[in-house]
Amino acid sequence: MSIKNVAIVGGTHGNEFTGSYLAKFWQKNLNFVNREGFETKVIFANQKAFENVSRYLDRDLNRSCSLLDINNPDKNSHEDKLAIELNRQIGPKDDRDKNCDFVIDLHTTTANMGLSLVVSDESELTWLSVSYLAREFKELKVYRWLGDEEDGYVNSLGSAGFAIEVGAVPQGVLRADLYLKTKELVYKLLDFFEKFEELKDSVKRDVIIYDHVALVDYPRDAKGELTAMVHKDRQGRDFQKIREGEPIFMTLDGESINYTGIEKLYTLFINEAAYYEKGFAMCLAKKIEHRF
Amino acid sequence: MSIKNVAIVGGTHGNEFTGSYLAKFWQKNLNFVNREGFETKVIFANQKAFENVSRYLDRDLNRSCSLLDINNPDKNSHEDKLAIELNRQIGPKDDRDKNCDFVIDLHTTTANMGLSLVVSDESELTWLSVSYLAREFKELKVYRWLGDEEDGYVNSLGSAGFAIEVGAVPQGVLRADLYLKTKELVYKLLDFFEKFEELKDSVKRDVIIYDHVALVDYPRDAKGELTAMVHKDRQGRDFQKIREGEPIFMTLDGESINYTGIEKLYTLFINEAAYYEKGFAMCLAKKIEHRF
Repeated sequence: MSIKNVAIVGGTHGNEFTGSYLAKFWQKNLNFVNREGFETKVIFANQKAFENVSRYLDRDLNRSCSLLDINNPDKNSHEDKLAIELNRQIGPKDDRDKNCDFVIDLHTTTANMGLSLVVSDESELTWLSVSYLAREFKELKVYRWLGDEEDGYVNSLGSAGFAIEVGAVPQGVLRADLYLKTKELVYKLLDFFEKFEELKDSVKRDVIIYDHVALVDYPRDAKGELTAMVHKDRQGRDFQKIREGEPIFMTLDGESINYTGIEKLYTLFINEAAYYEKGFAMCLAKKIEHRF
Repeated sequence: MSIKNVAIVGGTHGNEFTGSYLAKFWQKNLNFVNREGFETKVIFANQKAFENVSRYLDRDLNRSCSLLDINNPDKNSHEDKLAIELNRQIGPKDDRDKNCDFVIDLHTTTANMGLSLVVSDESELTWLSVSYLAREFKELKVYRWLGDEEDGYVNSLGSAGFAIEVGAVPQGVLRADLYLKTKELVYKLLDFFEKFEELKDSVKRDVIIYDHVALVDYPRDAKGELTAMVHKDRQGRDFQKIREGEPIFMTLDGESINYTGIEKLYTLFINEAAYYEKGFAMCLAKKIEHRF
């Protein structure tokens, strides 16, 4: 387990401005992300989507990096080409000898996720980093998201890594507070990598995480149009427990719909704009102590 | 001054979901907006932009309704055609005998505008309505925006009217609390119109408003890219006073930029996503008692 190359990826989604502007800033000011002992690459992933202030042009780049897709010669949309180029810079995904040992992929969300990590791999380096950061940042939350399309995530191209998610912030908006928090988190991680040999044995090998259980869609009519919205009493309550009988949705004519699922689950990514089209209103997770 | 036809317009911007879903709901449930004595039309203005979850396809519909544009046969973009169709339903703009006496145009904003009205005309009916609502809803704020492109606004096609702006809410997100507030405000206005003859003489002919003074753009480089963002101490402080020397922007490398303008002005529409491309970070207004 050695760290020789780190990639910071911003602009994976062109309308998520925190990572986009941080990547642009660091590309011009590499001294802020350079550390002793390893090389840091800053990649701006989707310039055209950024110029268009859209998540993507043809398909979601952060679902386009599966092995099947990047090795499929018939895939040639805008984001398919970007995924192949990212794989060249960061991967190869199907080779143990990769160009990048850790990928930090920068995201924002319209959900009230605060400062959070989305983790979708089981590598030791990933979890050592997560555990270290979770103890350095008391507000940091960790969501392990397995069971979506995590094989298509940008950070899956490297040997280890995760996505940083910060919110709530609208798409197409740069918020100073979240920009500063993301920057601070990245610097702390780079500092950790710089002193990795010295610190790695002292990192605690357990961390509290929210472990993915299920996705919950909005109530919809036969045409797929929403017939209800997230209930006002659930809005913004990311990483909070939802109990049976609590309101979860409200129909367009004002009727509450109550949660009927099992207890002891937590709601995350509540009312994320980009997930309307993916077909979910929130994620459900259980809170566990993860040992690795 | 008689009220025979009222138009409620939603989906003027396809990524502003409060008005979009309200208009869809009311189109299917006209009984909620029907009142005695006048006809209520519910118009969904830009279905294609809504399906595309974008503000517009070719140009901003809420800047496309000037007399020059709607009478220009060379204008034939998607939104130009919609503006002409709206003018047919609501106007004609250049005719005193219009199809609509009052236009309620439903909007949302990523700025923390709360429940607010944007008023851009001087008709008596508009101001009587504003004054009535301001007294019914203590939280309601009124912004008079003259000096932008208000001649191109959708509500300028009718004899009277205004835009309802609610926020903060991301584009492409439906928030139950703002949906309910907008609904309540519209119902109160329709009730007012229903009892207009009885109520009109008792409406106070003065109202506290925020009167447009200037637009302030983000600091940008020669290519037009942002070099600074709204300062975290200014973010969310819509309808609040800004004093000389207070931080207004923060550069991407973390330096504060302080406000150097005159005192006694208020900041509005702070960090609205749609205004990045229009070239402003916020509006400045003075707070006055408007008599009409």
